[in-house]
Amino acid sequence: MRAGAAAGRDVFGYNRSTDGVQAARFDGFDATDSLDGALRRAADVDALIVLAVPMPALSRMLEHVARVAPDCALTDVISVKGAVLEVVRTRRLDARFVGGHPMAGTAHSGWTAGDARLFVGAPWVVSVDDDVDETVWAEVMHLALDCGSFVVPARSDEHDAAAAAISHLPHLLAEALAVSAADVPLAFSLAAGSFRDGTRVAATAPDLVRAMCEANSDQLRGSLDRAIELLTRAREGLATTGSVAELVESGHAARIRYDSFDRPQILGTTIGAPDWRSELAAAGRAGGVIRSALPVLGSRG
Amino acid sequence: MRAGAAAGRDVFGYNRSTDGVQAARFDGFDATDSLDGALRRAADVDALIVLAVPMPALSRMLEHVARVAPDCALTDVISVKGAVLEVVRTRRLDARFVGGHPMAGTAHSGWTAGDARLFVGAPWVVSVDDDVDETVWAEVMHLALDCGSFVVPARSDEHDAAAAAISHLPHLLAEALAVSAADVPLAFSLAAGSFRDGTRVAATAPDLVRAMCEANSDQLRGSLDRAIELLTRAREGLATTGSVAELVESGHAARIRYDSFDRPQILGTTIGAPDWRSELAAAGRAGGVIRSALPVLGSRG
Repeated sequence: MRAGAAAGRDVFGYNRSTDGVQAARFDGFDATDSLDGALRRAADVDALIVLAVPMPALSRMLEHVARVAPDCALTDVISVKGAVLEVVRTRRLDARFVGGHPMAGTAHSGWTAGDARLFVGAPWVVSVDDDVDETVWAEVMHLALDCGSFVVPARSDEHDAAAAAISHLPHLLAEALAVSAADVPLAFSLAAGSFRDGTRVAATAPDLVRAMCEANSDQLRGSLDRAIELLTRAREGLATTGSVAELVESGHAARIRYDSFDRPQILGTTIGAPDWRSELAAAGRAGGVIRSALPVLGSRG
Repeated sequence: MRAGAAAGRDVFGYNRSTDGVQAARFDGFDATDSLDGALRRAADVDALIVLAVPMPALSRMLEHVARVAPDCALTDVISVKGAVLEVVRTRRLDARFVGGHPMAGTAHSGWTAGDARLFVGAPWVVSVDDDVDETVWAEVMHLALDCGSFVVPARSDEHDAAAAAISHLPHLLAEALAVSAADVPLAFSLAAGSFRDGTRVAATAPDLVRAMCEANSDQLRGSLDRAIELLTRAREGLATTGSVAELVESGHAARIRYDSFDRPQILGTTIGAPDWRSELAAAGRAGGVIRSALPVLGSRG
């Protein structure tokens, strides 16, 4: 709400928490704790609905959308895309749905944890699955750009594999690190930068971590297997040759490659042109991002 | 050197890198690339020698110390304490040695990576093994306090177990995270805060990471086993019940406990009094720290 309003958009919102709604109102935002009221208003003004609920609450929320505002353009900011798409299809809302995922956040939640500049400079994934509607896609792209993000076009399954590797696995590693240290006398007393950084995301509310990890179970299992394999091999190296060279050198090389990772700008694709979805998915896979709005077929400039 | 000089101490230093020495001199510090020259001078003025070399270079360095300045008080800032003590004993320098480990640093190395305020507010472990000399112990305590740190007294083996849990394990987890993600298309493109934080220390020079992990092999194997066990159980939870509740909830609880971890000040122990070493080790184990200098038996207040 804050980022949309700061970009000059008309924004109104619903939250089930009366406290959250009151806090938003106190800050001058147009918020309500009446879900059907907000959805009726969305249907009246043909709003773009942005779903920002934990995964377990999605199905019930979509039931209301399907009943009250079934024709609105629909997106979400949930951290898994395959599982969301499945629920959206079950509720037969997929014709007007384009999934989204801004890769930004804090370890805190609730109204007070927000910030109009939260999304500035962050990647915002917009799904380019086989049948996405070009008009809704363009609407979601504009929202992300208005909030200061750049857009990464990606298929839902490819997003989820990447999210497991760079978001869900780090959460589980942080939890494991915190638990391991908690058993060792002196550990908390000596903990410094590497422990603080390595466990920062373990401060995230457990329900949120569980919701995103458990909704991406298939991809996360693969990432966990890979991490366990690497750590087990390092452990064997220590026991047999006394060396962790293999893991340390490849880890360093990977991190340096990440630091110099380049994001070429995607230009020249017209949304709605033949093969525009697979073209954008390929460009996103190669690291490409959208920093200024792509044209839409049949629209002015 | 910077922190000692900022505290008003007379400081001079040796480095094998001519570039490093020239950079330090350019900044107004008294530095040389003549090791024996620096050690002869230390012997002349009865200096406290601070060894700041990677573990693999220690033995050769101590050979010089034993030959040129065997009676100087001696400490180190190397990240493992048991292995250092063993090498010091081999060189028969243990009578005037008290191990140290300031828990501060950056992912960078060399003269330019330093900062006079690097140690401010950081824990600085000072070893209280069975036979440490009280006068040298007090000298090292004063150095740490002068640099703005607080002192955590700890036995070498207990330090190493804690260091494995809060420093060496986080490095290996960061390396594993970076390697896992490097294989996944889109991962670097989507990487945000949790990946950046979780891999920050993977940017550390591989030789430094290897030196500290490999010198603490016994303790680190235990930490790795624990982490692998936790991750494997989470992986099984995902596969069987779809839940990662156990790891996520215990990780969150551990991190919250760390955030509210209290460091009571150690008062009332006199260095050199009967049982002073075991008294300080017990206080350190309970989270206690020294924030202002403890008195030394037989010295003025």
